[in-house]
Amino acid sequence: MNALPQALQPLFAQRLARLRTHMAETGLDACLVFAPEHLRYLFNYSGEAACGLLSARGSWLITDYRFIEQAEEECMHHEWRRGVATELLCRDRQRERLGQVLGRLLADIGASRLAYEAGHVSVSQWAEISADLPGLALVPLSDFLVQARRVKDAWEQQQMRQAAALADAALEALRPEIRLGQSERQLATRLEQLLQDLGSEGLSFPTILGFGPRSALPHSAPSDRPLQKGDLIVLDFGAVVNGYRSDMTRSHVAGTALPWQQRMYDTVSTAQQAALALLKPGVNGRTLNEAASTVLAASEFAEHAGPGLGHGVGLILHEQPFMNTVCEARLRAGEVVTIEPGIYIRGQGGLRIEDDALLLEGGHEILSRAHRDFELAL
Amino acid sequence: MNALPQALQPLFAQRLARLRTHMAETGLDACLVFAPEHLRYLFNYSGEAACGLLSARGSWLITDYRFIEQAEEECMHHEWRRGVATELLCRDRQRERLGQVLGRLLADIGASRLAYEAGHVSVSQWAEISADLPGLALVPLSDFLVQARRVKDAWEQQQMRQAAALADAALEALRPEIRLGQSERQLATRLEQLLQDLGSEGLSFPTILGFGPRSALPHSAPSDRPLQKGDLIVLDFGAVVNGYRSDMTRSHVAGTALPWQQRMYDTVSTAQQAALALLKPGVNGRTLNEAASTVLAASEFAEHAGPGLGHGVGLILHEQPFMNTVCEARLRAGEVVTIEPGIYIRGQGGLRIEDDALLLEGGHEILSRAHRDFELAL
Repeated sequence: MNALPQALQPLFAQRLARLRTHMAETGLDACLVFAPEHLRYLFNYSGEAACGLLSARGSWLITDYRFIEQAEEECMHHEWRRGVATELLCRDRQRERLGQVLGRLLADIGASRLAYEAGHVSVSQWAEISADLPGLALVPLSDFLVQARRVKDAWEQQQMRQAAALADAALEALRPEIRLGQSERQLATRLEQLLQDLGSEGLSFPTILGFGPRSALPHSAPSDRPLQKGDLIVLDFGAVVNGYRSDMTRSHVAGTALPWQQRMYDTVSTAQQAALALLKPGVNGRTLNEAASTVLAASEFAEHAGPGLGHGVGLILHEQPFMNTVCEARLRAGEVVTIEPGIYIRGQGGLRIEDDALLLEGGHEILSRAHRDFELAL
Repeated sequence: MNALPQALQPLFAQRLARLRTHMAETGLDACLVFAPEHLRYLFNYSGEAACGLLSARGSWLITDYRFIEQAEEECMHHEWRRGVATELLCRDRQRERLGQVLGRLLADIGASRLAYEAGHVSVSQWAEISADLPGLALVPLSDFLVQARRVKDAWEQQQMRQAAALADAALEALRPEIRLGQSERQLATRLEQLLQDLGSEGLSFPTILGFGPRSALPHSAPSDRPLQKGDLIVLDFGAVVNGYRSDMTRSHVAGTALPWQQRMYDTVSTAQQAALALLKPGVNGRTLNEAASTVLAASEFAEHAGPGLGHGVGLILHEQPFMNTVCEARLRAGEVVTIEPGIYIRGQGGLRIEDDALLLEGGHEILSRAHRDFELAL
């Protein structure tokens, strides 16, 4: 929970202004926002149980008694250059339905066409809300905000760098502590403690950590399996700084790699480098995916290659673009994407190497800098 | 991630059977389940990105390559006494839409009326899915599963007891470590580490921990504020055991209580006892809420009383019944509810006392046993 620093107010005002331009261009009188990442992106709100309403002139954040003080701390910034504060409304959930509050506000501003985030409200909740909004044209909001969030401004880039650096530091501190006999759960717990101690706001996502055959589970939840000599080890985790997330995977072998393990690691590493070699503004996700998947497909591990290359990352873990065989999205400077090819042999083991990369004019900057040594001397 | 023990299979079979009876009674050919808590309740699945389909004879769990091995580990139990396994489907998300998979399955079973969890699928996702299901009658699923989950069976009660005991033990271990000058964040981090070390599967919810004036925020996220002599301290947190959650709040004062702090504590404590005195099967949530709120309303802190008394807790943190002024739900043996009156004076401080209580025939069992001493000698 943090008040918005004065210096960042222009950034937030710009975001609101861009959305208003989109509203004007598409004939919308108001926008209703539910997604937590968009409440944070537009209003600096990091609580729960809220929605945001935006008109051409005003903005409202509606929550209840549990979060109203947090909203006051975080969101009472003035809309820069306009001198208008976002108005905070504390709804008494027992006395007034959300639709009633919205109906009142929308009538006040004379709205006739409202766009709502249809991907972030359930069928039943929307049925209930919209019953209180008769006579209004209700249309799903386009993916304007999703696309807008792809390109990170200078401040956002700094948060992403810090989140990646925190994850690097946590892994750096963890590695000397890894011992044979430790369970996946013990190691994951220790890693998460290090992330917290280093200042991460929480976990970017539940840590994925698998030993031996369990390393082949792309989303393995840590179990009680102890680390054994020769095991593959996959660690996939991230830190959070001011809401911005990192996402990194490192793969190791406990001791000396067997020849097939080393070949598998080299194949994944080569696939990742093939994609990174093309990573700069203008390239599309399909082309990047192809660069990596061509390497995997030409290897002895072809049938075990994981699908997809990576995804955007920012205020949420998985965001646009999703780089796979059908991704025509062209990358732009300021985007942060993961590049994470992997091979998963069921019952035997898998590995993945994943970095966060920030697109810059003419190239990119790798944000994840943790060591890449495959063999851990244990 | 845990395979379903043989001994629990009859319990899960019973859950499926009860839902099938409901389907037969309400003329449903199939049910489509999205809620994570219901995928766990019916199929023992604890992963993400899945949905479950149930017909009168069969059951299917649909996920993708990331979670299919987890599903195989967790869900391949046979439907007890029927010898039929839940069929697991690994969807290639790039090649086949979820609606296409569902359309195929529903055609195979000759379904004409499908109930879906309208509260757990977004408007846009459902628009996409339902476009692939022409000719089917699509109706929202009633709250049958929500109501079914309220009453915990003997095994579930044991998980709830253990989750509460873990939280007790974590607080017990934390208390001697509390020092003046520690920040809310440091203390919360340490508490969360203790929960993990003691074996909690994760956090029941993000820890709420506030000092001084910040204790008045009902959902305060831990900040860098250091603990000062005389501060009120609110700790609200929980553990998770096999998916089942605990939820407990303890409130303290750092040092000797000022008279108003002690009166506030005594008022909240009396309010809680007033509700607990009536807590047994047959009572409704409104009556319980009234018992506590009458005490609060008669006190000098009337205008600062928090609304609502508590909620059900289980596989999710907040579940039916929600005990407030309009709650007519009658409690039954086997339910677990929180009893958590609170007083919140904005800018000054607040406190809350919260216990999990299991309803038993003729009475209840308090699951949260952590000390209730108000003053901490620091």
